[in-house]
Amino acid sequence: MATQKVVGCLGGGQLGRMLAESANKRNIPIVFLDSPNAPAKQITANSAHEHVDGSFKDAKAIEQLASKVDILTVEIEHVDTEILERLESEGKVKVEPSWRTLRVVQDKYAQKEHLREAGVGVVDGIALEKGTVEELWQVVARLGGFPVMLKSRREAYDGRGNFKIKSENDFGPALEALGGKGKGGVLYVERWAAFRMELAVMVVKTKDGGLAYPTTETIHTSESICKLTYTPARGISAKLAKQAQELAKKAVKSLWGKGVFGVEMFLLQDGSLVINEIAPRPHNSGHYTIEACHVSQYDSHLSAILDEPLPQECLEMRVPAAIMLNVLGGETKDSHMIVKRKAAALFGPIGFHDYGKGDARKGRKMGHITVTATSMAKAEALVQPLIEFVDSGNDESSSPSSAPAAALTDSSAQPLVALVMGSDSDLPHLLPGITLLETLGISYTTRVTSAHRTPEAMAEYAQSAEAEGIEVLIAAAGGAAHLPGMVASHTLLPVIGVPIKPRLGDGFDSIVSMTNMPAGVPVATVGLNNSVNAALLAARQLARKDEGIRERLRAWIENNKQTVLKKDAKLHEMGAMKYAEDVLGVKK
Amino acid sequence: MATQKVVGCLGGGQLGRMLAESANKRNIPIVFLDSPNAPAKQITANSAHEHVDGSFKDAKAIEQLASKVDILTVEIEHVDTEILERLESEGKVKVEPSWRTLRVVQDKYAQKEHLREAGVGVVDGIALEKGTVEELWQVVARLGGFPVMLKSRREAYDGRGNFKIKSENDFGPALEALGGKGKGGVLYVERWAAFRMELAVMVVKTKDGGLAYPTTETIHTSESICKLTYTPARGISAKLAKQAQELAKKAVKSLWGKGVFGVEMFLLQDGSLVINEIAPRPHNSGHYTIEACHVSQYDSHLSAILDEPLPQECLEMRVPAAIMLNVLGGETKDSHMIVKRKAAALFGPIGFHDYGKGDARKGRKMGHITVTATSMAKAEALVQPLIEFVDSGNDESSSPSSAPAAALTDSSAQPLVALVMGSDSDLPHLLPGITLLETLGISYTTRVTSAHRTPEAMAEYAQSAEAEGIEVLIAAAGGAAHLPGMVASHTLLPVIGVPIKPRLGDGFDSIVSMTNMPAGVPVATVGLNNSVNAALLAARQLARKDEGIRERLRAWIENNKQTVLKKDAKLHEMGAMKYAEDVLGVKK
Repeated sequence: MATQKVVGCLGGGQLGRMLAESANKRNIPIVFLDSPNAPAKQITANSAHEHVDGSFKDAKAIEQLASKVDILTVEIEHVDTEILERLESEGKVKVEPSWRTLRVVQDKYAQKEHLREAGVGVVDGIALEKGTVEELWQVVARLGGFPVMLKSRREAYDGRGNFKIKSENDFGPALEALGGKGKGGVLYVERWAAFRMELAVMVVKTKDGGLAYPTTETIHTSESICKLTYTPARGISAKLAKQAQELAKKAVKSLWGKGVFGVEMFLLQDGSLVINEIAPRPHNSGHYTIEACHVSQYDSHLSAILDEPLPQECLEMRVPAAIMLNVLGGETKDSHMIVKRKAAALFGPIGFHDYGKGDARKGRKMGHITVTATSMAKAEALVQPLIEFVDSGNDESSSPSSAPAAALTDSSAQPLVALVMGSDSDLPHLLPGITLLETLGISYTTRVTSAHRTPEAMAEYAQSAEAEGIEVLIAAAGGAAHLPGMVASHTLLPVIGVPIKPRLGDGFDSIVSMTNMPAGVPVATVGLNNSVNAALLAARQLARKDEGIRERLRAWIENNKQTVLKKDAKLHEMGAMKYAEDVLGVKK
Repeated sequence: MATQKVVGCLGGGQLGRMLAESANKRNIPIVFLDSPNAPAKQITANSAHEHVDGSFKDAKAIEQLASKVDILTVEIEHVDTEILERLESEGKVKVEPSWRTLRVVQDKYAQKEHLREAGVGVVDGIALEKGTVEELWQVVARLGGFPVMLKSRREAYDGRGNFKIKSENDFGPALEALGGKGKGGVLYVERWAAFRMELAVMVVKTKDGGLAYPTTETIHTSESICKLTYTPARGISAKLAKQAQELAKKAVKSLWGKGVFGVEMFLLQDGSLVINEIAPRPHNSGHYTIEACHVSQYDSHLSAILDEPLPQECLEMRVPAAIMLNVLGGETKDSHMIVKRKAAALFGPIGFHDYGKGDARKGRKMGHITVTATSMAKAEALVQPLIEFVDSGNDESSSPSSAPAAALTDSSAQPLVALVMGSDSDLPHLLPGITLLETLGISYTTRVTSAHRTPEAMAEYAQSAEAEGIEVLIAAAGGAAHLPGMVASHTLLPVIGVPIKPRLGDGFDSIVSMTNMPAGVPVATVGLNNSVNAALLAARQLARKDEGIRERLRAWIENNKQTVLKKDAKLHEMGAMKYAEDVLGVKK
């Protein structure tokens, strides 16, 4: 049997700590090079493999770590790649991802040049060769004018090393602030990317190729620090999400070595995607994978660098929606503890990660929280009070209006069925169905909207129903009963039509107005005035997603069956004549 | 701000290790008393709080641990309760759950007496006062005859301390094996519980009351070691699952202190529930909560003993189904590593927990794996090859027929839509709908079954469709078209009826045979021969659960729209006369 390989990691911050959590779960020995009691070291104490104290930039310390392990990896790209190159060339250790990748990526301008050459779209940028105001004038002109973003080529992350230049007045302060005045090779300038939203994809590079996690939406603070991620990304098509995954895989394919890569992208106003930057390691935008996917980015990183199997299915979501909120340090040392307490008060210990960093500093990543739910709307309802709390500056006196944990189960706030009718005169016919929905514990809403008299309002309601959390529509109408079909034309939701018997005619007009929709726009039609069967059809559909509804439906059907059996017994006992007279009130 | 309390734990095996994983995630300091390098110690190295080496039965060592922490808890109940009682009465430490609970529970006979007095059903049992063959004869007679189970009162877990007595020939060997020959107070005898299945519920006792996790189905090996858990329990009603939760809460309510409790139950042949035993700590039957619930049993235990908030919603499942498989030691030292490798080959690192115990011993719990999926059927398909591998004695030469990880996403193997028709002559009318299902990537199956000519086969198919993973049924019939309604009578699934136009008549007969079902048994009726709309109704329903289907449906509708718009443009350009002639082939 092959011995378990020992992993060494340069850096033991929160990414290292979560990598260690994954290693702990699988009992993979892992050793860190960082300061004593760094976050990752707190949770790894395998006595057979001692940590190294020191800096992950110190060649000696790196060499010491390398001597203890089989594979070196990183939780930060700003490491000494010269020593890594030498150690690997001397056969002393394997480095994953390759030092070559780390070297290209740690210089952000070189990274973008590399991606451009690999045919991957990036924001236009020009490196400064002199670091003077005169050069800035020329570069801004070549990039098409203000605003532009002045950026440090190295040691830039979490918004550090960026300066937005709005006019020539910013030239001097920007060069000063980023330490590039009068220097070449330190800074570069990028065209301002007017993006619609920011997306990120975690890519895993294994010996067999590249695999992609789902496309995530990322929200940054005004200081460009990651604040929130939403997965799957909200409001983008599956096609675009797929394009983002493909672009990320293409970009990572151009780099060397194995492991997980965080790929940040801009979705531009014209719908195109460009790469913002790549991190050759686990990434903040992939934290959600711990709770939301079959295996986390940390699990995947270990599998990739250890050449262990990793089917694509592992990377897929095992819950419908996940939101990650970073807990950033505030004004006080214990600001993160206040958020931790607030989160516990709001929804218990759900998904809280405390990195064990001690005192907070403003903007420092102290922890994060991931909530998952059966829909993005529920996840949003759950986490919203905490976002408001954080945005209010951790004001402990503020209290949410309702218990957000209830968002996980409480369906009463969220109607699942919408009953729409062309006229309030249809309501009496819908009441038996509504009563049944209540019996089955199915939340609903009722609306009057007419295909003929309020066509715009009808269309608008039908178009928005899905986003409002409605799962199925019941539409009732009589005569030239266009409402169900018109509603169906404006939504992807299933529409059940209840034909209402008109005062004139036998109702066949109402029925065929629903059944005879053109192929392409279906209406599920029930019998005349039969709102009970419409409610039951809705219940049968909802029972496919909700075990509680299924069980109540089953019980209702069983009860119905018993009622019929009792009638049969009574009929058998009383005889036909007496039963007809006594029970049905039929006179002989 | 309150300082974070330090937790001390007696025992640092796998339960302690997973408790430490939860504490690590939340940065709660935790210290263990156990042998050096015990599983839990390997992953906790907070330098401010050193572990204690020694036995969790040693009063001195317990006192040493108590001096370092604010709250003492346990991962095993077989500890010295005298010293715990003294330490707490002297105000030196808090003990959760109470030493009183540990004392009652660690004697299994006393535990059952306690539960009986609390009005909770348990299996009948009698304690042996002499430990003789003569006494056994009397006791067996009082319990109603063979077989019976002879059990050790103390130090019994994972099947240790049980001996099944089938006849008087077993009396001597049983008393010998359990070390109770000629002794009182050591053994007890239980009536043989002929159970239908075993269930377990994790209960959390907080300062505010009792909360329950979902009801789990547990499967034990022939040596009574937990092998598998299925959550939610398969094949029991929601009502029974609720009863199990209520019974577990009632039992735990009778005990003292805070924390998580594992409650094991038998579901007897008559449908009643009795308690088998209670563990006053995290439990094997609650491992699934790590991946399947909003917070794990370990998270809950910490929240409960630290008086941190814990809403009931936290304990609910956040995935539809979870299966846990214990990795037990086999014949060789590395038997668990073989299973670990096999699991990785089958489905990557999904849900694998390796306890870091070193060499395996037969029956020793070395690790476990939890898989989650969107249905129990998918979870079963995923884990089945690993169960077979384990059952075959870890035969590495065996290979599964298909990649099980595909069970997570591959729907091709699992039809979601069943199209049933009364006669194969209906098939041509269904083809447009079938073609559309293929376009939308929706898996389906087709069956010929007649309500009138094969009533039993029809009923049987309809009854089994749901268990086979079908999500929606499409039934086509003409004339006295009973098939959709009859199918609907035998299932809880939504049924879509396609009326087929008969050779005689206008088809209204077929339509109203479907729409005019009695209230109580609905059929979603579409237009005559309109299988396209039936397929689209099915797709609209399935899109509520599957984002991929939703997106393909949306794209198909968009494409349809463009086709109509193009026709409009062409008509506008060509004019009505020319269009009618050239495109429609209408002669002037």
